[in-house]
Amino acid sequence: MNWEKIFNEPHVWSENLGPQHDVVLSSRIRLARNLIDRPFPARLDHSAQKQVLHQVVEAAAGTASLGDAEFIALPQMRKLERQFLMERHLISPEMASEDGERGVLISPTRHLSLMINEEDHLRLQSFSSGLALRDAWKSADQADTELGDKLSYAYDAEWGFCTRCPTNVGTGLRASCLLHLPALAVNGDIDRVLEGLTTLGVTARGFYGEKSKAVGDLFQISNATSLGHTENELIDNIERVVQGIGQYERQAREGLNNPHQRVTTEDQVFRAWGILLQARLISYDEAMTLLSNVRLGLQLGLPVPVRPNVINHLMLITQPGHLQLMKGNTLKTEERDKWRAAIIRNKLTEPS
Amino acid sequence: MNWEKIFNEPHVWSENLGPQHDVVLSSRIRLARNLIDRPFPARLDHSAQKQVLHQVVEAAAGTASLGDAEFIALPQMRKLERQFLMERHLISPEMASEDGERGVLISPTRHLSLMINEEDHLRLQSFSSGLALRDAWKSADQADTELGDKLSYAYDAEWGFCTRCPTNVGTGLRASCLLHLPALAVNGDIDRVLEGLTTLGVTARGFYGEKSKAVGDLFQISNATSLGHTENELIDNIERVVQGIGQYERQAREGLNNPHQRVTTEDQVFRAWGILLQARLISYDEAMTLLSNVRLGLQLGLPVPVRPNVINHLMLITQPGHLQLMKGNTLKTEERDKWRAAIIRNKLTEPS
Repeated sequence: MNWEKIFNEPHVWSENLGPQHDVVLSSRIRLARNLIDRPFPARLDHSAQKQVLHQVVEAAAGTASLGDAEFIALPQMRKLERQFLMERHLISPEMASEDGERGVLISPTRHLSLMINEEDHLRLQSFSSGLALRDAWKSADQADTELGDKLSYAYDAEWGFCTRCPTNVGTGLRASCLLHLPALAVNGDIDRVLEGLTTLGVTARGFYGEKSKAVGDLFQISNATSLGHTENELIDNIERVVQGIGQYERQAREGLNNPHQRVTTEDQVFRAWGILLQARLISYDEAMTLLSNVRLGLQLGLPVPVRPNVINHLMLITQPGHLQLMKGNTLKTEERDKWRAAIIRNKLTEPS
Repeated sequence: MNWEKIFNEPHVWSENLGPQHDVVLSSRIRLARNLIDRPFPARLDHSAQKQVLHQVVEAAAGTASLGDAEFIALPQMRKLERQFLMERHLISPEMASEDGERGVLISPTRHLSLMINEEDHLRLQSFSSGLALRDAWKSADQADTELGDKLSYAYDAEWGFCTRCPTNVGTGLRASCLLHLPALAVNGDIDRVLEGLTTLGVTARGFYGEKSKAVGDLFQISNATSLGHTENELIDNIERVVQGIGQYERQAREGLNNPHQRVTTEDQVFRAWGILLQARLISYDEAMTLLSNVRLGLQLGLPVPVRPNVINHLMLITQPGHLQLMKGNTLKTEERDKWRAAIIRNKLTEPS
């Protein structure tokens, strides 16, 4: 894989053209599928895992959706390269850290990825910019149909698609959106809003999915279960919920514009900007917080001299794996923080 | 008094030309004198205080040193104006806050001030830039001699000059230097160094003198008592001690330049610079800390694009009294912090 090329190519976040991109960075559809008459990957030995891998790669090669996808065999990847793929959400955290005969197919535009031998035999992902679950679903559905023509999926007429984890049984679908909610974080309503989601069949997760913490006021909103509803119903529900949260966030932003709050908000935004421009050491968490503050400022119309997609791009490339892969080798924390600060300074001061 | 003029004229700090100005901002000599056969000011009623005031002002008018000084009657000054004079060390904190028939004579260059009816009848102060106690002493001694020709000082052949507070009995002299010790503050040696002073007959005080706290890593070093030594001995001692502390500070600065510490120091300095350039709200304490960090950076030769005397000047004019007097009226804390941030941004971005 040509990493250097990947760093600079557009990404669903930094294209920044999607609907409601003031709040929603990206949408994702994930489908879990398993082959009939085969134990789940964790129950397969390496040789059997290899067979699955070959079978799926061969099937994908014959599809329109994934025919030109690049195959990456994970056992042959360095730890840093796996981390990079994880940070791009092209593979899951588990796939980045655990061993096994696993691989991933990635479409040239990086909008489709197919993980093989993750928790399920197949985990298909489709990405789009902004709130555009329908677009992502369309691509995912097409790829799924094409793959389904060549592979026999484990499917039960009553229960739907069979998956390793009960929460995925049924449609095998997870629809999720990555939301930037800085104003709700500032005014303290974020916890109330996120807690309210559980009754709607929706969960909020941190940046890297399950069990990960929220950084940079970024939250993943997705359906809690995939059983008992059609794909369309699940997607409609998430879309409705995300739109609702978006309204809360926009109201909170309005609130930050009132005369009393305005100067405090401006102070927070411009301090973040000043530190990003000048610091010589920045941790990942701090970078994300500062970038989040600047992104908020731009959404509020404050005159921070930077384009929003540059900020989104920095949120992406200052992740630890990205940083180290760019440098070409593993770095100690302080070296990483130094390098991160340098990259941020460079990006923010280069002519746009 | 023409306040606006004072704001912009050079000051012993911002002239920045004195010896050892890397560590020593300014030197000050203060002489306490009392008139013979008169109770101390606190024991005088208003009418008697007025008599002292007139007597001293008249005497000063006939001297070369203070003949062209401006007289300021403190009861007629607004609270803000008194605070301003205190922040310039032209009057003491007590004189700024307490009532009574008090006044101060200030020479046109502001290098001499004569407080009347402070703790003692006369408190003469002489200022110079950098470590230049001898210069300050020369001016003070001359003014004192001239005043002594016209006034009868309370003086005892054995005890020396008679003063209200026993620590001032004898020479009535306090020699003090204002030191900037950021590197000793960073490496944690500051407490040890300051504690060691007591055995040398020297005390360290905060920025505004006795009982005030240290801001911006600024410390006033002065003699603890004024009895039992000649003026020259007292001054020599302070000069020796200040030079010693200066050496410690310079060693500590060297230490910050070593490879391990260097990036941390750079980070601290440039973050301070970034925040000063961008913040919209800055408290006085924070401003002093940030300015102190930038001043340290300049002393270490880091490429912060600002001249040291601009930083010194900002340390002076961002004091609460200065700020409010500049604005023309009392401001609430938030308004003050907003105005302070604006002034700092302006000063730091104006063409030099």
